[in-house]
Parts: sequence; C-alpha cells; structure tokens
Amino acid sequence: MKRERHEEIWDFEHELAGGGGGPKLILGLDGGTTNTICICMPIIPFTSNHHHSPPVYARAVAGCSNHNSVGETAARETLEQVMAEALSKSGSTRSAVSAVCLAVSGVNHPTDQQRILDWLRDIFPSDVEFFVENDAVAALASGTMGKLHGCVLIAGTGTIAYGYTEDGREARASGAGPILGDWGSGYGIAAKALTSVIRAYDGRGPETSLTSSILHQLQLSSPDELIGWTYADPSWARIANLVPVVVSCAEAGDQVATDILLHAVQELASSVKAVVRRLGLCGKDGKDSFPLVMVGGVLETNRRWDIGKRVISCLVKDFPGTRPVRPKVEPAVGAALLAWNYIIEQSHQEHSDVDYD
Amino acid sequence: MKRERHEEIWDFEHELAGGGGGPKLILGLDGGTTNTICICMPIIPFTSNHHHSPPVYARAVAGCSNHNSVGETAARETLEQVMAEALSKSGSTRSAVSAVCLAVSGVNHPTDQQRILDWLRDIFPSDVEFFVENDAVAALASGTMGKLHGCVLIAGTGTIAYGYTEDGREARASGAGPILGDWGSGYGIAAKALTSVIRAYDGRGPETSLTSSILHQLQLSSPDELIGWTYADPSWARIANLVPVVVSCAEAGDQVATDILLHAVQELASSVKAVVRRLGLCGKDGKDSFPLVMVGGVLETNRRWDIGKRVISCLVKDFPGTRPVRPKVEPAVGAALLAWNYIIEQSHQEHSDVDYD
Repeated sequence: MKRERHEEIWDFEHELAGGGGGPKLILGLDGGTTNTICICMPIIPFTSNHHHSPPVYARAVAGCSNHNSVGETAARETLEQVMAEALSKSGSTRSAVSAVCLAVSGVNHPTDQQRILDWLRDIFPSDVEFFVENDAVAALASGTMGKLHGCVLIAGTGTIAYGYTEDGREARASGAGPILGDWGSGYGIAAKALTSVIRAYDGRGPETSLTSSILHQLQLSSPDELIGWTYADPSWARIANLVPVVVSCAEAGDQVATDILLHAVQELASSVKAVVRRLGLCGKDGKDSFPLVMVGGVLETNRRWDIGKRVISCLVKDFPGTRPVRPKVEPAVGAALLAWNYIIEQSHQEHSDVDYD
Repeated sequence: MKRERHEEIWDFEHELAGGGGGPKLILGLDGGTTNTICICMPIIPFTSNHHHSPPVYARAVAGCSNHNSVGETAARETLEQVMAEALSKSGSTRSAVSAVCLAVSGVNHPTDQQRILDWLRDIFPSDVEFFVENDAVAALASGTMGKLHGCVLIAGTGTIAYGYTEDGREARASGAGPILGDWGSGYGIAAKALTSVIRAYDGRGPETSLTSSILHQLQLSSPDELIGWTYADPSWARIANLVPVVVSCAEAGDQVATDILLHAVQELASSVKAVVRRLGLCGKDGKDSFPLVMVGGVLETNRRWDIGKRVISCLVKDFPGTRPVRPKVEPAVGAALLAWNYIIEQSHQEHSDVDYD
C-alpha cells in the first residue's frame, strides 16, 4: 500500500535549507494509547549516570497512534506530524537524521512492523536506520538507559509485560487490549468498577461506594446513565481516567473497589511472571537478579493504596531477585537511547574491524 | 434536535396513493444488536392458540439499530428504512398505521425513549399510537402473546433479563453492553474464549483446544494475529459468532471452554434471579409460578452442552415455579402484539364506557 502523501507536514524544511552543519540526530518516539511523544536527540557523547541526563533538543506531543484504536490512516498521520514537529522545533531537517526508533503500542506482529518500516522508508532518506518496536521496548530502554535486558511492566490505559535477555530472546504477555482481557490495565480496572456499579444497581452485586463516587465524578444522576456515557465515546483513555476514583474508594475501605485493585495486582504480577519464566530471567534457581522497569499511571507511587508496590510484593515471593526500577527518563528518550546504543556499538565494531584488518 | 429528512425512503407511498381501504395496521419492530426486524400486522380479530398464529402481512429485515453500537444517525436511518420496507411490502402507506411498537436494544433510559418518540412523531400522522421499549419487552411479549407479565432472558450477541408484573412494575438486569460486564452474552462468552487463547499463548493460562479451534475457524495461523483480527472491526456480533466453537470445545471435554460456559450460565441465572427477586415474581414463599421467556442464539436447545437448560436447572433450585417458555413467534410479532393488546383493551374500555353512560 502506497502511503498517503502529507508533504505539507514537511514544508518547514524549505525554510531551514542550507542550515544544517550540527550533529546528526536520532528521533525517539513513544506511541501509547493515550498520546504520542517524539524527542530529538543529538548523537554526541554523554555519560549516563545520576548527574547527567541524555541531551534532548526538542520534544513534541500528539494524540493516540495505536492503529488498533484509531485506525491506520489516523495513526500514521499522527506519527508523521509528531516527528516533523520535533525536527522543526530542533531547527533541523530529515537530512540530519541518522536513526528513527519508533515504539508504538499495537505493534504485535511482524506484519505490523513491516508495514510501518515500509512507510518510514518512504518518508526518510535511504541511509537512515529504522527501529520499529512495541512501545514496551521503549519503556524497558527508558529504565536501562537503552540496554535491552530485563523486564518492563507498563500499566497505563493499557498494560503489557515485555522482557528481553542479553542473548537477544524476547517475550511478552498481555498488551492485547481491552477485548482480549488486559484486566490489570487502567481501562480494565475502570471497566470493572463501572460494571460493579451496574451490578449493584440491578441487584446482581453488593452495594459499593463506587456508585456515588463515579456518578459524582462524571456528573451523572443515575447508574443507568452510565450506559449512555460509556458508549458515547469509544476512547479507552476516557474510561481509564476513572482509576483514581477506584483507588480513593479502596483507600476509604470499600470492599468492591479493594477487590478490583487486588485482582488487578494479581493480573499484573501474572503477566510479569509469565515473561520472567519464559525467558528464564530469574535463572535456574529462580533467584537471579533482573531489572523490572515499572511505567504508567496505574503503577505510580503517590497513593496510600499503592498498586505498584503490591505487584512487587507479589513478585518477590516467586523471584527474590526482582529489582524494581522507576525510570528517570521518559519512554521516548528510551526509544532514542536504544537507537543510540546500536549506533555506538556499530561504530565501535567498525573501528575494531579496522584494527584487525 | 430536528431529525434528518429521509423523504426518499417514503417515495413508494405516491404510487399507492388512493389505494388503502384495507384494515388498519400495526408495525412491530425488534431492533437487536445484530439485526432489526419489522413486521406489519392488520388489526383484525384472531384467536391465539396452538393452531393460529397472529396474521402478518409483511416482514422486513435490516442491520443493527442499537444507537450505542452504530451511532444515532445510522440507527435511525435503519429504523426508518425497515419500517418503510414493511409497509411498502404490505401495499400500505403511513395513513393506514394505527400503532407503532418500536422495541430496540440500547433503550435504557427515559431520555432514550423520549428522543425516539419525538422522532417517530415527526414521521407518522398525529393519531398514531407509539410504544418505545427496550427490545427485551418485545421478546417477553413474544412468549406471552402480548401480555406483559413474567420474566424474559435474552442471550444473543448481547444479554438482558427483563421482568414485568401484572400491576405494572418492571425491572431489568444486565443489558449494559460488553464494556459494562454482560458476561453471559454471546459476545461475553466469545471474548472470554479469545482471552483464554491469548493467556495460554503468553504463558498466563492453561493450554486449551480453543486455540486450534478458533484459529482454524478464523483461518489465522498464530494467536498473536487474533489481536489484529479483533480490533479490525468493532462489531460485537462478529465476535459473538465464535460461540458455537466454544460450545464444541466444551462438548469435546475442554476444561477452559467448559469453565467459560459454566460462568456464563451463572451470570445469566444471576440476571434472572435479580429481576425475579426485585419484582417478587416468585411470591412471598418463593414458589409462585411465573413464565420465563427464553430467547436468543446462546439459549437455543440444539446442542449437547445446553446453556439454556443449565440456566433453568440453576433457577429452579431457587424458584421452583419457574415456567420456561420458548416463544412460537418472533420478537417483532411480540412487539406488534403488545400494541394490539393495548388497542383492543382500549376499545373494550370505550365500549364499556358507552354501556355505562
């Protein structure tokens, strides 16, 4: 399929023509179900430690780029626009780009990857390196400074667990979206909470303070209005926005809300366990140390009822070597670091090739 | 909101002008999530017994008319078109219509009802009687020949339990769609089956024969292709079509498939129980007899693993007076009979008013 031309997106390049001369660039892109972030990073040496963050020239933000959620045409337009904006903001053109690492949710199959690669080749000069991954890969890289090793658990609007071994094997669990049972996701938690309100209302389930809290939050007066509200807009993120209400109800002691969160914890832990077991990240005796990068609103540590902390408690029982990491950079930077590491390694290899010739 | 004009839908009436002279008519309409059926019934006396079916002049079929599923504009166009087609097929015009009973899934709130009523008044002459109900009401009426009493359980693509007492109280349970936990529906059963395949594939759940059976049915080669398949088309009915595969796997002894069906049975029974308890259909001692009208593909009795029969077994434990009814007419006829009963009762009342004057 030939891509639809959006040449006007790149009009800014005409004004910059003749500029250039700066360092070569990497575009790192993190495309989630809620929004898409693109950063532009120069290929200059830096030390990754607590005092130095990787240099970032520019950052651009756009909406959802999951093709399963918004469709392929809309997803591509979002991706192209956000890359152009990041380049434009850093005063550069596509000719300065060395590598693009595009990590997007909804990339689940080699055919998804291939379609996006073909499309990228049509946009950028022929010498650009491309990396197309699921957004989980960028999140892992954001916790390991670009090194692919360990496991990442993302739980925002959606959820996925993804792992990578030093010898290049990879595995994932969940990340199949709301219809296919991502019950630990923000969407899953909120949908269960809405369902509990309906069940209490029609006499199938216990009373819960979720009813008054959710109705108040959405400014509705009766649970049967929830049906219209739910189907008025198919956005997964809109439903997932109710997670803080569920957490508040659990904190206040509501049993239904508590059970929903406990179930989510089990689901999230089971995704990580499946990945760790399949890859043997925990070693033969189950005690090897491995990083577990934790990303996403559901795992944030700012609440008394702390979902992320409970997931870790659940995991260390089986895998005492679980080493939780809260990334210091965002996944889009992780995506760029992934490409950065690859380019640096390649140039080391070229130099050593020369040495041995 | 003024309705969008679709006058061309009614063009056939010009050719029929001056005809008429036949009996007055009722339009009965059953709008489900999968399709919409409209029948046209003359207001002539008939005896409802095993030998006589209600007279039907014409029948028209269209697609989904649930506004939560296809949006309001598409739903209305479908409804208007299917009513025009039924009238046109019976060689009549809107001036011959005495009553319209529109029973559509997705009518969950008085505001839904009011919006559709306003819209109908704009289409039909001012002396037409309108009845706007959830499609569950038509299904109940199809099992009771238009009399509103008892409980109906629908389980097709969606599911709802709805009940009505002789003194006019009503209650419903479920029917809130897939996001809000209708787990006994065809969609719910199939989504759980798809989820089980994903869970087995990524190591979170037990192996199941659902994997090979569903992949074979959909002509896919790997479970990760299920994600693309699932989100390629948001139709609930398309997912629900997988129910026979789940039943076959359960019949062949697959434990995962069996557990999914057992869970659906519990969910369906719990919806009926909630309605029966709230309305007191079972009487004070819980033993009163009441009709339970059973409708929809999930409850059909043509399989060895019989979901409907198991729901009944589950119910009679609590309510020994449960009297299962398999309707002999379709819900669209039930909708028409509902209006028919109302009109006949009203005319009896008018006659008795005359008697006492």
